[in-house]
Amino acid sequence: MVIIGSGFGGLFAAQALRKAPVDVTIIAKTGYHLFQPLLYQVATGILSEGEIAPATREILRKQANALVLLGEVTDIDLAGRTVTSSVLGRTTLHPYDELIVAAGAGQSYFGNDRFAEFAPGMKSIDDALELRGRIFGAFELAELAEDQAEIDRLLTFVVVGAGPTGVEMAGQIAELARRTLRRDFRRIDPTTARVVLLDAAPYVLPSFGEKLGGRARRQLNQTGVEVQLGAMVTDVDADGIEIKEADGQVRRINAATKIWAAGVQASPLARLLGEQSGAEVDRAGRVAVLPDLSLPGHPEVQVVGDMMSLDKLPGVAQVAIQGGRYAADQIKRRIAGKAPREPFKYSDKGSMATISRFHAVVDLGKLKFEGFIAWLMWLALHLFYIVGFKSRITTVLHWLVSFMGRGRSQRVATQQQVYGRLALEHLGPDFEASKTGGPKTSPVDEDITGRESA
Amino acid sequence: MVIIGSGFGGLFAAQALRKAPVDVTIIAKTGYHLFQPLLYQVATGILSEGEIAPATREILRKQANALVLLGEVTDIDLAGRTVTSSVLGRTTLHPYDELIVAAGAGQSYFGNDRFAEFAPGMKSIDDALELRGRIFGAFELAELAEDQAEIDRLLTFVVVGAGPTGVEMAGQIAELARRTLRRDFRRIDPTTARVVLLDAAPYVLPSFGEKLGGRARRQLNQTGVEVQLGAMVTDVDADGIEIKEADGQVRRINAATKIWAAGVQASPLARLLGEQSGAEVDRAGRVAVLPDLSLPGHPEVQVVGDMMSLDKLPGVAQVAIQGGRYAADQIKRRIAGKAPREPFKYSDKGSMATISRFHAVVDLGKLKFEGFIAWLMWLALHLFYIVGFKSRITTVLHWLVSFMGRGRSQRVATQQQVYGRLALEHLGPDFEASKTGGPKTSPVDEDITGRESA
Repeated sequence: MVIIGSGFGGLFAAQALRKAPVDVTIIAKTGYHLFQPLLYQVATGILSEGEIAPATREILRKQANALVLLGEVTDIDLAGRTVTSSVLGRTTLHPYDELIVAAGAGQSYFGNDRFAEFAPGMKSIDDALELRGRIFGAFELAELAEDQAEIDRLLTFVVVGAGPTGVEMAGQIAELARRTLRRDFRRIDPTTARVVLLDAAPYVLPSFGEKLGGRARRQLNQTGVEVQLGAMVTDVDADGIEIKEADGQVRRINAATKIWAAGVQASPLARLLGEQSGAEVDRAGRVAVLPDLSLPGHPEVQVVGDMMSLDKLPGVAQVAIQGGRYAADQIKRRIAGKAPREPFKYSDKGSMATISRFHAVVDLGKLKFEGFIAWLMWLALHLFYIVGFKSRITTVLHWLVSFMGRGRSQRVATQQQVYGRLALEHLGPDFEASKTGGPKTSPVDEDITGRESA
Repeated sequence: MVIIGSGFGGLFAAQALRKAPVDVTIIAKTGYHLFQPLLYQVATGILSEGEIAPATREILRKQANALVLLGEVTDIDLAGRTVTSSVLGRTTLHPYDELIVAAGAGQSYFGNDRFAEFAPGMKSIDDALELRGRIFGAFELAELAEDQAEIDRLLTFVVVGAGPTGVEMAGQIAELARRTLRRDFRRIDPTTARVVLLDAAPYVLPSFGEKLGGRARRQLNQTGVEVQLGAMVTDVDADGIEIKEADGQVRRINAATKIWAAGVQASPLARLLGEQSGAEVDRAGRVAVLPDLSLPGHPEVQVVGDMMSLDKLPGVAQVAIQGGRYAADQIKRRIAGKAPREPFKYSDKGSMATISRFHAVVDLGKLKFEGFIAWLMWLALHLFYIVGFKSRITTVLHWLVSFMGRGRSQRVATQQQVYGRLALEHLGPDFEASKTGGPKTSPVDEDITGRESA
C-alpha cells in the first residue's frame, strides 16, 4: 500500500502498520517528518531545523515493511490505482491496493496570492528559515540605516492571523526584540521594535473561546505585542500592509517584515481526488470524505489530516494522528477479513498555545486555564512528541537557554536566504538571479561589487 | 577603527581591542563568526549550522566599543582612508584611522571556475548546507533509481584535495554510508557507496609529513575511502570527473557528488589592496604584507589571515588568530604612543586533522602521533574553541550521538537546496528559475506538477 505524506497523518499511519502483512511505501516531497508546531521556534532562532525534522527513513529504520521514497506526488489515478511521483524530472509510478493520502496543507492568502512574496507563511522548514533570515535581517538593516522612517519600517513586524501560530510568532518576535537582542546593537534600540498582531476576528485564539482569548491578548500586550482585531488585510507590498477596519476605514502600517499565519489551503491533491471521485471540495480546498475517511466509491482510498474535511474537524495535529491510525486500522482489518470499523470519531484532547515565556493557554473543553502551569504542560507535551531521544535533549537545552537565559543559538541565516529573498523584495528578480543563479564558492568570479557572474 | 571580516582574524582582533580607547567597527558579509574547521560536520549532518556560527554581535555584546555591521566590502580607498560596504543595494561609507582587513579566502579551482557548479567547495555555511543536500539527496535518488549504472553513479562520492578538509569529508561520508545510513534504505545498500579521495600530491595530508600521511591513508582505507594519489583533476561535469595520472593516462570516474577541497583563493580585496599599495599579490591572490603585517606605505592598514602572505605562512586558524591579536596590539601601542612591536612571529602550535571516528593525526613538529589519543585531543581543542557555552553542550551531545551511537540529527536539506541546486545540475537553469524564482508557500500557485509559477 502507499502513503502520501510524512507529516503527522502519514507517519502515524505508517507506524501503525508496523506489524501488518503488507508493504508500505511512503512517498513524501521532503526527506523528513516535520513537527510543525515548533516551526515558529526555528523561525525565531531557538531551534535548529534538524531538531524538529528528523529523517523519515531514520524514524522508520527498524520497520522492515516500510519503504520511504522521496518524491512529489504529481498524479493519483483512482481508476488505475496508481500514484505518480516525481523528483528532479525522474518520474515513478506506484501501483497500490490501498492508499492513504495525507499531503497536508499550505498557506492560504484567500485568493490574494501575490501577498505571498511579501508576507511568507510558515508551513515548512523552508518557510521558517526564510522568515528567520528576514527577521534577524531586519534588525541588521536597521542598524545600518540612516533615515528614521526607514529604521521604523525595518523595526516593525506584522503578523497576520491570531490563531496559535500567529500568537506564538508575535510573542516570540517581541521577546526577541525586548530580551534577546536588547544589548546586541549600538545604533538602534531593538526593544523599541513594534510587533503587531492582526486578525479580522474579534478576539485572539478564536477557537479557544472568548475568555482565554481575552487573557491571551492581555499577556500579548504585556509581552509587547500590539493586538489589532477586527482588522482585515486588503493589501501587502514590499514596504507594508494595508488594513480595513470593521467601520470601513482603511489604514496602512509600514513594515519590512510581514508574516502570514492567517489561513490554510489543502494540498492540490485534494482537488484532484475530488474531481475523480465526485467528492465535494470546500473553499479551503479540502476534499469531503465519508464518515470512514474514505472517498466516495473508493473504499481503498482514505484521506486524513489537513487536506480532508469531515464534520468541520479542525486542521490540527491530533486530527491527523488519529485519522492516520484509524486509516491504518481499516487496512489491517480489510487484510484480515475483519469487519470495518465504525465511523471515525475524533477524540478531542484539547488545544494549547504558548503566548510567551512562562505563559500558555490550555483548552480542555470544560477545563480552560492559562499561565505558568499551562506553559509547563505545553513544554512537556511538545517534548514528548518530538521524535528522537537526542532531539529531546538538545531541544530542552535550547529551551533552557532561550527561556531561562537570554540566548538563541540558531540565528544563522544563509546568504542564499538573506541576499536571495530579501533581494527579490528590494531589488527585483534580476538581482536574485545574479545572486542565486550561480555557485557561491568561486571568489574569482565575483566582480568587485561582490555580485557573482552566473 | 574598522575591521573587515568576522572570522578568526577579525573576531580575535576585535576582542583584543576590548579595553582600548577606540571605536571598533566590524564589517562582515555574514552576521556570524564561522568556525570553519567544523563545516564538514554541518555538511555531513552531525551539527546544525547554528552550533558553529554564533552571531558576531552576540559574541561582542558586552564589548561597548564594538559596533557590528552587516555588509560586503566593495571598496577600500587607501588614500582617502574609507571602506565602502554594501548590502542589498544600500551602500555605507566607513572612514577609518586604523584598518584591519581579515576577509579570508574562498575556494580556488586553479582557473577552472566552471568546476564550481559541479564540485562545490566548503568555505561557508551556504556551501556546507548545499553539500548536505547533495550528499543526502544522492542516497535518496539512488533509492528511486532503476538503472544500476545510475545507482552506481549516485552512490559514488569524489572528494578532491587530501588536505585536512578533504580527508575529514571523505572519512565522514564513508562513515555515513557504512554506519549511519546502513539500515535506512530498502532498495539500495548504502554501505556499497564508493568514496574516492583524490590528490595530485604523492600522499595525503601533505603538510603533516610522509609518515603521518601514510598512516592517515591506511586509516582512510580502513574506513572505506579509496585514496587515489598522483591524480590531477582535468575536468568536472554533472555526471563525473576526469583525472590525469602521473603517467599521462586519463580516466573518468562517474560520480553524482563531487566536493572540492583542493585550493584556496584569497578574497578579491587582497588584489585591491595590492593594486593600491603596490604590494605583490601571489598566485593564490594573497597580498604580501611587511613583517609587521602592514601594507607598504600604509602602516595604518594591516592584513591578517588567509588573505595575506608572509613567510609562506599557511592559511590556518592559528595564523589568523595570532595575526589578529598582533594587529590589535599594534593599534593599542600606536594609540598609547608606545613603540611598535617587533615583526610578527608566528608561534606554530601544531596541526591536527581527524580521519574517522576515534582516529586523528596530530603534528606538533617534533612530536607526531595519531590514533585515539590524538582524536581526543582534537575533540577537546575544537570544543574549547567553539564559542559559546550552550554550543559546547549541544556539540558534545551531537558528537556523542554520532560517534558513540550511529545517528546524525542534522540531516535536513531544504527544498531550496534539494530542488534548487540539484535541479541546476540535472535539468538546467530553466528548471531552477521556475523552482526558486517564486515563493514556495502558496499551493494554489502550484500546477499539478508541483512546479510553482513564478
